[in-house]
Amino acid sequence: MTATGKVYLIGAGPGDPELMTLRALRMLKAADVVVYDRLVSSEVLAFAPADARMVPVGKAPKCHRVPQEQINAMLAELASEGQIVARLKGGDPLIFGRGSEEAAFLAARGIEVEYAPGITAAQGVAAVAGVPLTHRGLATGVRYVTGHRAAGRALDLDWASLADINTTLVVYMGVANLGEIALCLMRAGLPGSLPVLAVSRATTAAERRLVSRLDQIGVDMKVANFEAPSLIIIGRVVRLYPAQADETASFPEEPQDATALAGE
Amino acid sequence: MTATGKVYLIGAGPGDPELMTLRALRMLKAADVVVYDRLVSSEVLAFAPADARMVPVGKAPKCHRVPQEQINAMLAELASEGQIVARLKGGDPLIFGRGSEEAAFLAARGIEVEYAPGITAAQGVAAVAGVPLTHRGLATGVRYVTGHRAAGRALDLDWASLADINTTLVVYMGVANLGEIALCLMRAGLPGSLPVLAVSRATTAAERRLVSRLDQIGVDMKVANFEAPSLIIIGRVVRLYPAQADETASFPEEPQDATALAGE
Repeated sequence: MTATGKVYLIGAGPGDPELMTLRALRMLKAADVVVYDRLVSSEVLAFAPADARMVPVGKAPKCHRVPQEQINAMLAELASEGQIVARLKGGDPLIFGRGSEEAAFLAARGIEVEYAPGITAAQGVAAVAGVPLTHRGLATGVRYVTGHRAAGRALDLDWASLADINTTLVVYMGVANLGEIALCLMRAGLPGSLPVLAVSRATTAAERRLVSRLDQIGVDMKVANFEAPSLIIIGRVVRLYPAQADETASFPEEPQDATALAGE
Repeated sequence: MTATGKVYLIGAGPGDPELMTLRALRMLKAADVVVYDRLVSSEVLAFAPADARMVPVGKAPKCHRVPQEQINAMLAELASEGQIVARLKGGDPLIFGRGSEEAAFLAARGIEVEYAPGITAAQGVAAVAGVPLTHRGLATGVRYVTGHRAAGRALDLDWASLADINTTLVVYMGVANLGEIALCLMRAGLPGSLPVLAVSRATTAAERRLVSRLDQIGVDMKVANFEAPSLIIIGRVVRLYPAQADETASFPEEPQDATALAGE
């Protein structure tokens, strides 16, 4: 069989359809079939051609999802039939998106793959909240990690490496484990007064924000009943968050300790 | 004076105009004045209204640029005159873009600011080269740092924290200092065989790629006369780079040491 179809691995961005790239939009509009994750918003899906076949493969929290192997096989089969497949993922397919796993499976079968990068949640949150990911004197770099772990397993993170006061730390998929993550970061040397911004459903109408500090964020998120998908930004850059724009915040004090101000 | 204008802080993405977001395009098309950096491509600038005033403020390497204070004052003055100002930056304004410095200056003067996030160079390179920034078994997270330093000063980086084999390390503005950066990373524990991908002018017609390894990249970049703006991806994810697509590569061996395979 000659594969005349192809698969577009598309980052749909954080939720707001206006944060899609022009390329993502072009690829989505060219699709015969759209295979999409749960985190892709309905406003983004509305850009698909009216006659495209829509195939949801996302998982709801704690529910079954279509296994990755089955998604891979489905994409390969559709493309082999000659169809243009838009594989839509939230954020960017190459940042916690498993896009490269699907691409490797398809490439090994001779199926053409093209990427459209997407605005990842950290960037979406930064833009809507006005909190930079780097800022002279506050953060010389930024780091994305995932707070997710397999059931019954320990978090597989290098705490000593993560506890860098000069780097903004962004935690994806961290709602369930944030209390533990914060505790480990403090044990590794980060000050408890370090400000934290948590945002759920960023850039959508259902967006919620919570400002706290490292030694309180775990409790604050439980009290506020914060739910996935959420993104957590930890670091001095959160000081730049305009407090008056926040609705649910328990306002942090500025870090007073010497550690937090080192390097300024 | 009543400020009726506003400033849009816009990320233009890595170069290819198709990697702009829909929001960036809308804001640019609404501009009376476009204040743009050198790294914004001419194809992106072509989206500006035909009658918009175009003001370049970028710097060429080793040449003078418009000082940041002067840019801040210019943006404030234009907005105060009631103009819609599109402040266009390469990549994302909140990742090594100094967008938040401009925003703080403007907000303190009561001038309305809105952001459009942009695809940052790391994402652009990942998408065109097919190298993921995270990948199961190869990288649990990703980190962006800058390799730039003020003249005569040491690189201000935490090498022990950076030398994390499970994290993809992306170096922005690192061409001049990459040999030294690689040496420091190896001293801090990263294997010399770790693969490295360097890309200059990513996503444009002038794009160049170079695949090497940590203990050779400094020399290889000099020999290839690699020029800024370049982006360097260091980490096991570069193993996934499809070698046959590369034109200037000195192919690395796979990391053989136990360190490089830890955690898989």
